[in-house]
Amino acid sequence: MFPFVIDKTDSNSYARRGLLTTPHGVVDTPVFMPVGTAGSVKGVTPAQLAATGAQMILGNTYHLRLRPGPEIVAELGGLHKFVGWDSPMLTDSGGYQVFSLAELNEITDAGVSFRSHIDGSTIRLDPEIAIGIQEKLGADVIMAFDQCPPIPCPREEVESAVERTIRWAQRCKDAHKREDQALFGIVQGGLHEDLRLMCAERLIEIGFDGYAVGGLSVGESHDEMVAMLQKITPHLPADRPRYLMGVGKPRDIYEAVLRGVDMFDCVMPTRNGRNASAYVASGQLKMRNACHSRDDRPMEADCTCYACSHFSRAYIRHLFLAKEMLGPTLTSIHNLHFYQRLMRRIRELILEDKLGTIPDEFPVVGMSDRNEPDDPRDN
Amino acid sequence: MFPFVIDKTDSNSYARRGLLTTPHGVVDTPVFMPVGTAGSVKGVTPAQLAATGAQMILGNTYHLRLRPGPEIVAELGGLHKFVGWDSPMLTDSGGYQVFSLAELNEITDAGVSFRSHIDGSTIRLDPEIAIGIQEKLGADVIMAFDQCPPIPCPREEVESAVERTIRWAQRCKDAHKREDQALFGIVQGGLHEDLRLMCAERLIEIGFDGYAVGGLSVGESHDEMVAMLQKITPHLPADRPRYLMGVGKPRDIYEAVLRGVDMFDCVMPTRNGRNASAYVASGQLKMRNACHSRDDRPMEADCTCYACSHFSRAYIRHLFLAKEMLGPTLTSIHNLHFYQRLMRRIRELILEDKLGTIPDEFPVVGMSDRNEPDDPRDN
Repeated sequence: MFPFVIDKTDSNSYARRGLLTTPHGVVDTPVFMPVGTAGSVKGVTPAQLAATGAQMILGNTYHLRLRPGPEIVAELGGLHKFVGWDSPMLTDSGGYQVFSLAELNEITDAGVSFRSHIDGSTIRLDPEIAIGIQEKLGADVIMAFDQCPPIPCPREEVESAVERTIRWAQRCKDAHKREDQALFGIVQGGLHEDLRLMCAERLIEIGFDGYAVGGLSVGESHDEMVAMLQKITPHLPADRPRYLMGVGKPRDIYEAVLRGVDMFDCVMPTRNGRNASAYVASGQLKMRNACHSRDDRPMEADCTCYACSHFSRAYIRHLFLAKEMLGPTLTSIHNLHFYQRLMRRIRELILEDKLGTIPDEFPVVGMSDRNEPDDPRDN
Repeated sequence: MFPFVIDKTDSNSYARRGLLTTPHGVVDTPVFMPVGTAGSVKGVTPAQLAATGAQMILGNTYHLRLRPGPEIVAELGGLHKFVGWDSPMLTDSGGYQVFSLAELNEITDAGVSFRSHIDGSTIRLDPEIAIGIQEKLGADVIMAFDQCPPIPCPREEVESAVERTIRWAQRCKDAHKREDQALFGIVQGGLHEDLRLMCAERLIEIGFDGYAVGGLSVGESHDEMVAMLQKITPHLPADRPRYLMGVGKPRDIYEAVLRGVDMFDCVMPTRNGRNASAYVASGQLKMRNACHSRDDRPMEADCTCYACSHFSRAYIRHLFLAKEMLGPTLTSIHNLHFYQRLMRRIRELILEDKLGTIPDEFPVVGMSDRNEPDDPRDN
């Protein structure tokens, strides 16, 4: 089990600052993991990514399984070597993508089969296969294969998904052999507190190296998400990392940290960056807008990222209008840096015991209630 | 007039090694200038570009005039500042693009009008306007506005284009006021030696800071191009830089250096890079090909570029198949580095007085006779 040291807990909330040790280095928590879906955090090189302050990144088992395939990644020395990222990595299990994105053919207790979004071929995934793939990929942290129901969803379907998630969690635990990888369980249960707590309890009985909350940020409001987190996290082991999957907007992250969450991932900084939306403290700048055409200021005045250190809003607008790749690249660099700066500030404030008291410092960006839908070809 | 010092001439050819001083730094010649068409060398940041060894880059007046417009660039501090490139730059005059790419409305001695490829609006360009735009952009080296005839082309049309190019050259010289910019004249004349020499003579009478050969690499064979160069360059002033516009393939460059050319530009390293074609000593690798799927070697074994230092052929192939921006970026970085390495080696061999004697050392890539057609939206 990887060492996870909590060196400070906030007096006013459940927030904590920690250090998660992995075979590829130590990660400061709370940590935000940029998403390298198919083996690349879109639009940036690993060197540019590291320069934003990213310590750990995520790869998607669903995408990597379809292309290039885990055997090829393993043959080439594993995911770290393949993608040129020698720092910590996490792979998800493919469960979320299978249930939210793929055209499902069949789902039983044994596993699921679905059609590839690339060539329509039929692919099978079950707990043993998901663990086998993740062992081949070789990330530092891997995830149990779960069934992620949508929100809203009839209670009996959520119940069934929770029961199956628990059975599958046991199979994942049994299947997992690599000792240089941590295996996290995933708590499901939608917006049903009793199902969430039951799921957490059963996963803790099985015993995992960390505990994720899945099935949030899938359609519910920000307030519903925070309220549910508030109920779940106190029941997750305090000495193990807690990971809120697929979240989220800066405000979501801040509120989740206050509820004791340590790890996050989201495609938003890069997806928004590619779409010309730049995070700034006051909101989001739409970089194609005419108001930037003669603006010699950087995207954000006090930002030290490569984009803000060298380029004006006017130039970045021009790049988007001229369809130059450099526009998406620079805005993605800025957004990734923005997220890492947010996390650094959160960690500082926990150390200073000030986090819960001055939330107004945080950017109000991304406070709208609903998240954008996911797309397997663009995340 | 910018200092241009030739510190070595080759004993076996007209090749020479020089140092061209500009307000933004000194350039080693023979130099290859990557093309930043619309203010960005496609697919790479200025930092990545500088790391390939690029010393000087080119911007296209035609594209920058249409978008964002020279007034905006000037208002934002000039082209160097706008695009974040603090080293030497050259702008062309727009002549080549107007005659090869645009839908021409009218061409007279006074100037030309054409339709914008962006919005169809009518745009005017003449010698005074072309110089005015280039003064606003503020590159270190700017080009006279010329009429570039295609090859093949009836002799009387080439004659007419040469006469007009000479008249326009005088008007450019008269219009040019900025003393911190060098102005180069452009020799036209197709494959007609007498017209080329007459054009050169008249331009030399007018007097320019450097002399370009235009209207080659526009349809003729490699051998025809080299044969024509062989006849022109001895008639261009030995103490001023000679620039072969829009060239070219590695072998074209090598042969042109042997004929005394000092400066080159071409979109090939980046355009080919975006299209998954990687330059290596033995030819070009098509990075989408299945043969790379399990190949853990870098694109080129002895290459020190960022791409070859960190990534396998298998990964780069995967990036192209997954449509990740990183594929074009890494292959462009490699190709730009390949071209700069070629130029460094050429300069070394001139210093060692060995250039003319061992041409077989040079990569045979790009030896096919014809160049690809240009496209205003993709160069």
